[in-house]
Amino acid sequence: MTVLGLGPMGHALASAFLRARHPVTVWNRTPGKAGDLLDRGAVAAGSVRDAVQDGHVIIACLIDYDAVRAVLEQAPADWGNRRLINLTSGEPAQARRMARWASSRRIDYLDGAILTPTSAVGTPAAAVLFSGARHVYEAVEETMAAVGGTAVHLGDDPGRAAAYEVALLDIFVTSVNGIVHAFALASAEGIEPERFAAFATGIGGLLPEMITRFAEQIRTGRYPGDRSTIASAASGITHIINAATSHGIDTGMLTAAKSVLDHAVAEGYGPQSLARLTTVLNKTGRP
Amino acid sequence: MTVLGLGPMGHALASAFLRARHPVTVWNRTPGKAGDLLDRGAVAAGSVRDAVQDGHVIIACLIDYDAVRAVLEQAPADWGNRRLINLTSGEPAQARRMARWASSRRIDYLDGAILTPTSAVGTPAAAVLFSGARHVYEAVEETMAAVGGTAVHLGDDPGRAAAYEVALLDIFVTSVNGIVHAFALASAEGIEPERFAAFATGIGGLLPEMITRFAEQIRTGRYPGDRSTIASAASGITHIINAATSHGIDTGMLTAAKSVLDHAVAEGYGPQSLARLTTVLNKTGRP
Ligand SMILES: NC(=O)c1ccc[n+]([C@@H]2O[C@H](COP(=O)([O-])OP(=O)(O)OC[C@H]3O[C@@H](n4cnc5c(N)ncnc54)[C@H](OP(=O)(O)O)[C@@H]3O)[C@@H](O)[C@H]2O)c1
Ligand SMILES: NC(=O)c1ccc[n+]([C@@H]2O[C@H](COP(=O)([O-])OP(=O)(O)OC[C@H]3O[C@@H](n4cnc5c(N)ncnc54)[C@H](OP(=O)(O)O)[C@@H]3O)[C@@H](O)[C@H]2O)c1
Repeated sequence: MTVLGLGPMGHALASAFLRARHPVTVWNRTPGKAGDLLDRGAVAAGSVRDAVQDGHVIIACLIDYDAVRAVLEQAPADWGNRRLINLTSGEPAQARRMARWASSRRIDYLDGAILTPTSAVGTPAAAVLFSGARHVYEAVEETMAAVGGTAVHLGDDPGRAAAYEVALLDIFVTSVNGIVHAFALASAEGIEPERFAAFATGIGGLLPEMITRFAEQIRTGRYPGDRSTIASAASGITHIINAATSHGIDTGMLTAAKSVLDHAVAEGYGPQSLARLTTVLNKTGRP
Repeated sequence: MTVLGLGPMGHALASAFLRARHPVTVWNRTPGKAGDLLDRGAVAAGSVRDAVQDGHVIIACLIDYDAVRAVLEQAPADWGNRRLINLTSGEPAQARRMARWASSRRIDYLDGAILTPTSAVGTPAAAVLFSGARHVYEAVEETMAAVGGTAVHLGDDPGRAAAYEVALLDIFVTSVNGIVHAFALASAEGIEPERFAAFATGIGGLLPEMITRFAEQIRTGRYPGDRSTIASAASGITHIINAATSHGIDTGMLTAAKSVLDHAVAEGYGPQSLARLTTVLNKTGRP
């Protein structure tokens, strides 16, 4: 088991494999990042070449696909029967390109996406998606169980895990940016962060039911506004923009969201559910 | 008990008061919205004047404060000892202005913010914040218990509930817009909405722990990047933007978020936690 990359996630993966008593070799571009992993039995390889040589399953977990490609070009050309599992986040097209690169070198390749934070890795809370040749997935399934939790193989298209990942990351990244913005606004209003958090944590619990309802509305193409409407959201977002502006806080995300809401109202969707925005986002198509 | 406004939330409030066996009078600008409330014993007033006359506690739940003001101008000038509770969403400054207007008419005024969706109203899941004179809150506390769940009085400043509300709404509205965007992206990638939802619902569960951690980081001013970093998020958001762009889906919110992340990286915060963005959002201050 080789882990290439010791950022927070690479470190968590190596740690989970050690806990499951796999022999683990690690490599990181900047040396000295292995820390406690060495005390726990990991071997730090001095080069990518040595790191790949050391493992049967090679896991890449780096900042992006360009980094993965740059690192792997330093590996020996002949991988023997080593397998490559790329758990780096990226776009579907990048995953497919990576699979073609691996195929050109006769490397068995699996693409993956980790859906949970580092703290979940190695616990039942972890969730990982895989895509790529089924026989590769089956060959590594048992080993990868050390990551814990739910593993799902989405089929042969190597881009599939990345397709789910970008869409899921879309929700996560947007929410996180909303959260930090809300803390900035709360602070400006003189609300202490921990007092604000006591109320804010409840919002996470509102999302699952809404996501499930939106999915049904999108599938059926019916968007009843009986619970809350686009018009109401357009009005609500205006208050946030005004309050943020009055404190000199950036409003970029909010004004962008408002412009989509306003566009939807102009198209006559004001009385409908927010799930209707999916079609508006598609139609406006401003890249 | 009078409810002014029968949008989704006004309707849910009136319904909860009926369930708690309060006499309920309703009024809505567009007639014919009372529906099942009438069968259940509510009285539909023909004018604001009649509606206010009918109740001891007057609840306003309209689209915004301008609407509340426009509606209340139609009420008699002398409110006797009727109390006004405004559960309309708005900005702290608007709530304070409204309190001054009420005071000029010798109306006991309480401002409030409903933090939960219509489906929670009248159940233990409901959460409502109030602010304004304590004696008004104490006078209506028992009546308002019909809304259910948690009620918190935040103190005498009538703008306080709205301050919490705009910041909480910030998270909610941003997340909801991220969710519909993610559905648009997933659809474009050929992922069925309900299949996507099965994974997406898990994201809500990741937020509370993060919100709590960010609150502590903001309070202490220390932003360790040991779990995930601003640099990693800047890279991740680029994938989403590229994938969305390739499908002609709007990227306004994401590019706005990316510009804040890039700004943070340029300021040297790349290796830190995303909670650090709160200071960046404050400093950029682009209204
Ligand atoms: N952290 C999480 O919660 C989380 C959750 C789900 C998925 N992921 C994904 O997991 C992957 C890794 O994330 P992370 O949190 O560990 O941190 P990250 O900041 O995304 O990646 C850091 C790693 O990338 C390496 N790297 C960056 N540029 C490089 C280059 N040009 N050549 C070689 N190596 C390079 C870094 O090496 P140096 O130390 O030398 O800079 C370090 O090993 C990302 O794709 C991320 O999206 C992370
Ligand atoms: N729905 C939720 O889940 C939720 C959750 C928390 C807080 N809230 C807040 O509760 C308030 C009411 O929300 P809502 O969901 O019920 O729907 P809404 O769309 O925000 O408000 C609809 C109500 O406002 C009235 N209205 C609009 N413009 C008016 C005007 N110029 N004069 C008089 N009345 C006017 C509408 O009357 P017509 O029927 O005549 O148009 C209707 O009664 C909002 O501030 C909202 O932010 C809602």
